[in-house]
Amino acid sequence: MFPTVGVIGGGQLARMMVPPAIELGLGIRVFADIDDSSASIAVTTVGDYRHLESVLAFARSVDVVTFDHEHVPQSIVRAIIDDGVVVHPGPDALHFAQDKLAMRVRLSELGLPVPEWAAVASMPELDAFIAAHGGRAVVKTPRGGYDGKGVRVVSAGSEVASWFDSDGPLLVEELVEFRRELSQILARRPSGQIALWPVVESIQRDGTCVEVVAPAPHSAGQIAEVAAEVATSIAVNLGVTGVLAVELFETTDDRLLVNELAMRPHNSGHWTIDGSVTSQFEQHLRAVLDLPLGATGCHEPWSVMVNVFGGSADHQRLGAALADQPDVKLHFYGKKPLPRRKVGHVTAGGAELDDVKLRARAAAAFFED
Amino acid sequence: MFPTVGVIGGGQLARMMVPPAIELGLGIRVFADIDDSSASIAVTTVGDYRHLESVLAFARSVDVVTFDHEHVPQSIVRAIIDDGVVVHPGPDALHFAQDKLAMRVRLSELGLPVPEWAAVASMPELDAFIAAHGGRAVVKTPRGGYDGKGVRVVSAGSEVASWFDSDGPLLVEELVEFRRELSQILARRPSGQIALWPVVESIQRDGTCVEVVAPAPHSAGQIAEVAAEVATSIAVNLGVTGVLAVELFETTDDRLLVNELAMRPHNSGHWTIDGSVTSQFEQHLRAVLDLPLGATGCHEPWSVMVNVFGGSADHQRLGAALADQPDVKLHFYGKKPLPRRKVGHVTAGGAELDDVKLRARAAAAFFED
Repeated sequence: MFPTVGVIGGGQLARMMVPPAIELGLGIRVFADIDDSSASIAVTTVGDYRHLESVLAFARSVDVVTFDHEHVPQSIVRAIIDDGVVVHPGPDALHFAQDKLAMRVRLSELGLPVPEWAAVASMPELDAFIAAHGGRAVVKTPRGGYDGKGVRVVSAGSEVASWFDSDGPLLVEELVEFRRELSQILARRPSGQIALWPVVESIQRDGTCVEVVAPAPHSAGQIAEVAAEVATSIAVNLGVTGVLAVELFETTDDRLLVNELAMRPHNSGHWTIDGSVTSQFEQHLRAVLDLPLGATGCHEPWSVMVNVFGGSADHQRLGAALADQPDVKLHFYGKKPLPRRKVGHVTAGGAELDDVKLRARAAAAFFED
Repeated sequence: MFPTVGVIGGGQLARMMVPPAIELGLGIRVFADIDDSSASIAVTTVGDYRHLESVLAFARSVDVVTFDHEHVPQSIVRAIIDDGVVVHPGPDALHFAQDKLAMRVRLSELGLPVPEWAAVASMPELDAFIAAHGGRAVVKTPRGGYDGKGVRVVSAGSEVASWFDSDGPLLVEELVEFRRELSQILARRPSGQIALWPVVESIQRDGTCVEVVAPAPHSAGQIAEVAAEVATSIAVNLGVTGVLAVELFETTDDRLLVNELAMRPHNSGHWTIDGSVTSQFEQHLRAVLDLPLGATGCHEPWSVMVNVFGGSADHQRLGAALADQPDVKLHFYGKKPLPRRKVGHVTAGGAELDDVKLRARAAAAFFED
């Protein structure tokens, strides 16, 4: 009776779409690349997302196709659309999440605030950019970068000499002096409706998000307004459908600059599962089905999410964490625990930020190696 | 790494255990009696729950067995325990949810407040009870009664003459003059920990719950205390494990009398999915695994749940309801819509009870036939 969403990719993002699909009575099917993926409970196909026939057969079994990750090639996405399948986000939008250089070009055209950047095709060009920007810069491979991979801070082009092997130029950006990192998440329907959650602070360690505070402290007023305007402009101008996450730098001179985009639910929105009337996962399903979006109010003044990494998420520690923190919500992704692997997250909520942080960190600490 | 819960029965209660199992990283497997059940996403066996070999094979594949319904025969439950499988609730407790006469005997022994009742083996005995209680009484078949079936209000024994065919006596109870019906839900771990949600008001129509208000209006103080004490006493003295629902009459002379028991998540607790820090479904999983129980605080001062019945839950109405009520949470059970069939529920929350009721009823009304 209700439609079925097909998700390409079987990671934790696909997994976390399953509970809201069950709740709303929607069908959900997942195309995973391995047996025993995080989303295995909803997997109907195990295959290679670069293999057109497998993806086509899967796509024809659902009402709309969406994604757990941004790696599905443009050719595949366009082929299933040509076959008559609805896909959100569509390939034109997805392109800007798949290619950081294309994203920088487009955002600059739109006059949106971004770090200074350049496309560099050779080491001398890169060295010239570094010299012009204080002796250090961030080099990125335009495609395939994920969670710190394909991104390096360098003082000389020679540090990434091997990266010039790849096709096309590299992206180089100024090393932004930032006070903190923020993230603005929204969802947009094909028919245009947009719903935003409050801008959050994302705390990174070694290039990986470890903690999120919602809303970002001291963000009420101008910071929240600018973050919402920038993200809304990106969603509208790039034609994004589904959830969009815009990672932002808050600079030491009080500007907001766009760092990265993700066109799918994002780690900086996991707090919404427990902290908001509508989670980013439910909202993504509603958006890609062009169903009206849910309210994005918060249950508590503050929510803090802490990621769980590592190899120690066993039954005994689960019991200890639940006993110690009866009102912290624990989430595990069904992944084999390995050192430094992200295997889950916890979310606490409440009226006093310091207390909320302490409770979330205490729960997560039970699973540290 | 984390344990797996096995649920016998594939109805909406099993279905609603799946999201919290996914979230906590627990395994969940369901034994359903039909293909395409409400819980189909987690079904690993389709079979007859009265067939020992099928149930045994299923039970051996999980860490603990629990139930979606109370119909599994004692002999089956005892056989899988003898085989070494952990089962919650256990057969001694379950007996009192399976046999209303045994329940009345036991609660009376414990001195808990119940309506006046008798076991009647013949029409003259039944007529005598009716005559002694104002000319009307409620007759119940001790076993197999569910959602109004096997329960009838009568003025004469002849109205249920055919019921005396069954084995054993019938249960007859006084027709209680009640102001309203309440429900107290709790969860209890095998090791003894108990967590209670606030007592709620359950509004019935034609013997079926249609709406639940949490907490029950004007229940603070003595009503809440007595409801909690009675339910706690039942849980402890009957050795209940998992979720227990105690349905109560609030009489016109200000007493609380125990009506029915359910040893599983219950319709009167569905509001906890959206309205409480820990839902009854998550709590049931934690309890049957003997994991520490979660906090039972409420997100909002009031939550109102309205059941959705009937054959009109289609995509178009879903869109209309979501557009009209962006902060009401909709839940559908994946059941084929048929007239008067319970196919879902909606929950609204907020600070003003009248407004919360209106919003929940408005959302549910989109699906009325």
